[in-house]
Amino acid sequence: MFYFDYNATAPVMREAREAWLEATEKVHGNPSSPHAFGRAANHALVNAREQLAHHLGCHPGDIIWTSCATESNNLAMHHFAQTLPREAEIWLSPIEHPCIDNSARHYFGKRARFLPVSKEGVVDLEWFTQEMTDKRPGVVTVMCANNETGVIQPWREILSICQAYEVPFFTDAVQWLGKMPAKDLGQCDYVTGAAHKFGGPRGVGFLKIPRGGKITPLLLGGKQERGQRAGTENLPIIMALMAALEVRERQLAENQHQTRAEWKEKFEKLLLRQVPGATIVGAKAPRLWNTTSALMPEGGQQRWVTRLDKAGFAVSTGSACTTGKETPSHVLSAMGYPAGQLTQVLRFSSGWETTAADWEALEKGIVKIFGEVHHGR
Amino acid sequence: MFYFDYNATAPVMREAREAWLEATEKVHGNPSSPHAFGRAANHALVNAREQLAHHLGCHPGDIIWTSCATESNNLAMHHFAQTLPREAEIWLSPIEHPCIDNSARHYFGKRARFLPVSKEGVVDLEWFTQEMTDKRPGVVTVMCANNETGVIQPWREILSICQAYEVPFFTDAVQWLGKMPAKDLGQCDYVTGAAHKFGGPRGVGFLKIPRGGKITPLLLGGKQERGQRAGTENLPIIMALMAALEVRERQLAENQHQTRAEWKEKFEKLLLRQVPGATIVGAKAPRLWNTTSALMPEGGQQRWVTRLDKAGFAVSTGSACTTGKETPSHVLSAMGYPAGQLTQVLRFSSGWETTAADWEALEKGIVKIFGEVHHGR
Repeated sequence: MFYFDYNATAPVMREAREAWLEATEKVHGNPSSPHAFGRAANHALVNAREQLAHHLGCHPGDIIWTSCATESNNLAMHHFAQTLPREAEIWLSPIEHPCIDNSARHYFGKRARFLPVSKEGVVDLEWFTQEMTDKRPGVVTVMCANNETGVIQPWREILSICQAYEVPFFTDAVQWLGKMPAKDLGQCDYVTGAAHKFGGPRGVGFLKIPRGGKITPLLLGGKQERGQRAGTENLPIIMALMAALEVRERQLAENQHQTRAEWKEKFEKLLLRQVPGATIVGAKAPRLWNTTSALMPEGGQQRWVTRLDKAGFAVSTGSACTTGKETPSHVLSAMGYPAGQLTQVLRFSSGWETTAADWEALEKGIVKIFGEVHHGR
Repeated sequence: MFYFDYNATAPVMREAREAWLEATEKVHGNPSSPHAFGRAANHALVNAREQLAHHLGCHPGDIIWTSCATESNNLAMHHFAQTLPREAEIWLSPIEHPCIDNSARHYFGKRARFLPVSKEGVVDLEWFTQEMTDKRPGVVTVMCANNETGVIQPWREILSICQAYEVPFFTDAVQWLGKMPAKDLGQCDYVTGAAHKFGGPRGVGFLKIPRGGKITPLLLGGKQERGQRAGTENLPIIMALMAALEVRERQLAENQHQTRAEWKEKFEKLLLRQVPGATIVGAKAPRLWNTTSALMPEGGQQRWVTRLDKAGFAVSTGSACTTGKETPSHVLSAMGYPAGQLTQVLRFSSGWETTAADWEALEKGIVKIFGEVHHGR
């Protein structure tokens, strides 16, 4: 089987597994416990926090560990709803992950205002700049890179504008972290990340908050994380996240993702040439090196997924959080694609382990299926 | 070092580590993904759910996986607050874990009513029976066994009374599960459990809900867990929980905890005999086989913890969620202990791996320190 669904979840890398194993064997205390085991665990926790802060470019005290990105995003939304003025709006992109989109709608209702995105899937920076001269939302939320299309958002530019108007900026960096350098993310007021999209384990995420800030907790109980997130700190899984991030940051520093971007670009070129009617979503926009989203001819997305699955290729229709049925993509809908095309999209998302040969095999697999279906008509 | 803080967190057992490793290697798909990897993961998830339901004695559909007991308990409290009538009260014991206590106070305010407990640390069943003839709370919450004292609560009796009056009963079984048989817990309307108190890893818990019920989600996003808990299902860690529970249920079926109870009883007898002034909290109540809570002479709890720590024994002052400073125990306070004694308590909590020799060493260690301090006066 060839795995092309890294944006749903990535296999846990060896270094992360070993870090988890080592921590469960050697640092098994509760970081809040008042003895040698507790101190060792707390010491490791402090180190991990410093290490992550170093990568993000923020203060260790700005980091709250959580169980996953969904929790981090809900924690942030809940906090905004609790602390912003009653009439304050949240401005967010309409292509956010469901855990941002649904929680924003839940907590803000009609005060959730959606920024337009271009046909290429990029938030309309001109519109945003213009609108900000007039009005001030309570917070602005735009993801770093989209999970369905891989399209990179102008988060640095949006951050600058937000800073100029002193509006807090929140970014969901889940698909960015471990694929692009974490550096500079720490400048955003709020940042969400999780481990399992880049080779760390499931069960750990974080929320970076503003320096000196304090978050209204969503989970109440013990005083862990300075009273901002109750529950025994999950040191082993945090150690595994950090082990994975260290590896990815090293690979990124060595520009190892450039070659991988080329493999994907070659795949896209061949796909367009050999499968007439196929188009790449967000083709003209800057995109993550690992993700291709394509509108496919010859049948809906579920049929393509099934055919590819039988042929040994694991691909997806979009967010794993919305699969299971033929759900029109809210991302493509926001990009202005007509209703008929919203269920035509396939997502091919690779990982650091994916090889040039894997991409070639995928391309050949698609072409073969296309040929069979096309001529079988 | 001798570890006597299992109620804070227990080391991860070999079988649980192996289950996690195997799942991360072999079943690494996202259970919501529409391909072979996803199906394999979903299949394993379905099996794990059936396995847990079998142990609890409930329907697999009654189980919601969460990231920890704190999340499960907050999820339940949030749900009660969202769905019970505006004026409905919650009746709970005053010795619940902070994640129940704090969330109940948060969501119910003055509608949180606390049941009296005896000097032995047991919820007053007579009072409860009497009070229920008059009034009907929206929900009753009493833990199975207390984390600080190990005192077992009459949850079966409370459940029966609740059933008679058709009042939902919620129990936090975190300190019960894996130490006592899970059987019958499924009869309670709501049950919380977590893995890391009995040899499973941190990062996984569950909430058992009533048959055919539906919980108001606390974390919004994807449609996982039938829309009741968003976030990629953490299969590897769920597999590890189940591996650990299987081992514990087997040990319980073989009555392996009986011998361990005797070791602890012997320790308590020797402690009382050799350390004049020491008393056992809840001595006359039924207690978990692993926990001893003792009021100690000769200085406050922090000094005892420090002395024992130096001597190689990891013990605790009570809940790890409240340690770090000399905090008066809310549990002992509810039991009627005077203010001066609330910071005199030490908790010795053992695990399945603790041996008779470990208990003997602890006893000797305490006596040695007592002798030094007492004669050094």
